[in-house]
Amino acid sequence: MIEKIKEEFAAHVRLLQDQITDALKEIDADIEITEDNWQRKDTLGNPGGGGRTRAFSGNAIENAGVNTSLVYGATSEQFAKQIGATKAEMWATGVSLIIHPRNPRIPTCHANFRMICGGDKVWFGGGADLTPFYPNVEDFQFFHDVWKETCTPYGFYQDWKKQCDEYFVNKHRDNEMRGVGGIFYDHFFSGDMEKDLEMFKDISNQFIRSYFPIVKKRINEEFTKEDEDFQLHRRGRYVEFNLLHDRGTHFGLKSNGRTDSILISLPARCNFTYCYSPKEGSPHEEMMKYYYPREW
Amino acid sequence: MIEKIKEEFAAHVRLLQDQITDALKEIDADIEITEDNWQRKDTLGNPGGGGRTRAFSGNAIENAGVNTSLVYGATSEQFAKQIGATKAEMWATGVSLIIHPRNPRIPTCHANFRMICGGDKVWFGGGADLTPFYPNVEDFQFFHDVWKETCTPYGFYQDWKKQCDEYFVNKHRDNEMRGVGGIFYDHFFSGDMEKDLEMFKDISNQFIRSYFPIVKKRINEEFTKEDEDFQLHRRGRYVEFNLLHDRGTHFGLKSNGRTDSILISLPARCNFTYCYSPKEGSPHEEMMKYYYPREW
Repeated sequence: MIEKIKEEFAAHVRLLQDQITDALKEIDADIEITEDNWQRKDTLGNPGGGGRTRAFSGNAIENAGVNTSLVYGATSEQFAKQIGATKAEMWATGVSLIIHPRNPRIPTCHANFRMICGGDKVWFGGGADLTPFYPNVEDFQFFHDVWKETCTPYGFYQDWKKQCDEYFVNKHRDNEMRGVGGIFYDHFFSGDMEKDLEMFKDISNQFIRSYFPIVKKRINEEFTKEDEDFQLHRRGRYVEFNLLHDRGTHFGLKSNGRTDSILISLPARCNFTYCYSPKEGSPHEEMMKYYYPREW
Repeated sequence: MIEKIKEEFAAHVRLLQDQITDALKEIDADIEITEDNWQRKDTLGNPGGGGRTRAFSGNAIENAGVNTSLVYGATSEQFAKQIGATKAEMWATGVSLIIHPRNPRIPTCHANFRMICGGDKVWFGGGADLTPFYPNVEDFQFFHDVWKETCTPYGFYQDWKKQCDEYFVNKHRDNEMRGVGGIFYDHFFSGDMEKDLEMFKDISNQFIRSYFPIVKKRINEEFTKEDEDFQLHRRGRYVEFNLLHDRGTHFGLKSNGRTDSILISLPARCNFTYCYSPKEGSPHEEMMKYYYPREW
């Protein structure tokens, strides 16, 4: 049965990659797409799977990455231990994506959905989180509502929302969050693989409707130089989180992953300013208060 | 005697901070300077010294930071062990600086010079390294010549040059260096504190003449859009190094240092581009070959 589940989730993430690619093309007709298919070897030098990286560069979407991978094979004892595998081999598949729109009125969005097997253990991880730069609170509410509505029937919304609030945090910036959160889960296994498969297919299928309506709503909105300055500053914070704290980034780089596929998460442009603070009374100052956990 | 040496090196780094500040003002008459004096507590909550941060923002010099600090007091056992101190207390002073010129024909430069005492152990650390974006090889040669000439009489040039080549490396980018190197040393103690003090005063005094002549020579040089694109891309690599690999940055952030003073090292603007490669036959493609160790 496990083989069938692996196959089904692997096919699912590739389908999702295509669907998200289509959604991006719909938003930005002239978007340039670079597709790279890459392969890897496992720690014994045997074929270990690979991935399909899609890098996007456009007008409405300044840069984006929508990647899938399916990797397997021998792994180090240390790595097996770290992921809780029962022997030194693994199998994993997933889709991960990051979308950095050019217009600062449109939030940046990140998501990933993955399945991992180590020996006879199977689990799922993933989530979706929003990083806005302008206090259009109704958009944040919309995003959180989709995830609340999706995850509540399964009984995990509060837990996964909290995990997200706790994960995407710049500890070195007085615990400011990267964005406004969303959901995040890891090492999930209910005991019923088939049920989990269906649940995470359902959950990941909600990504498009959680985010793209916001993009469409804001895409023609005018923005100011101040909006862009704030966006570029917050993108700097995004870089700080991804390079200083993100376990996925560190794990990928340390396990000799494909660097350009991993760091596709970084924004095309960003700024770093000593002791940055938004103008008093500006929408950006207002935005700052949303970068902390709250009920949605 | 150790008290006199501490006092002398602390005064020295503050003098150097003023001299480098003056050198920056000479280059960029209208440069804005923000000075922040900050204080810290030690791990027992007692006064633990502090620092003087100077952030620069100008035309010729896009952003720069020239910081001194003098910190002391109780520390964790773990930290004491890590720095090799004989008991859980420390004293440290130093100057650290980063200069990001706007013109891509002028290299970015970083240096720091510090003295650390842990229990009855004393040592020095520091160095200076250059990160150019345009293959003006004579400038790299000039910089390396100053350090070679300075450190050779002491017998340490080859060792410190090699340590620099090995330290400022983006391992996740196929071991590409951040720049073209310089010198780097750590945990240095010859057995004769007074001799070491004089040596490191002398060495740090050479910083201004190793770098500012290059700035002055290139400051009015025209540059192209392509030069700037390459600079912004390489500044992205600089950020990757500082946030992923730099021990000083990690140490500072983990030990609850002042975040804005630590991350003053990051460039005001930078870019990240999926699978970036410079144009074939361009000066930037030529520049790429200098980001690996070589004899100067």
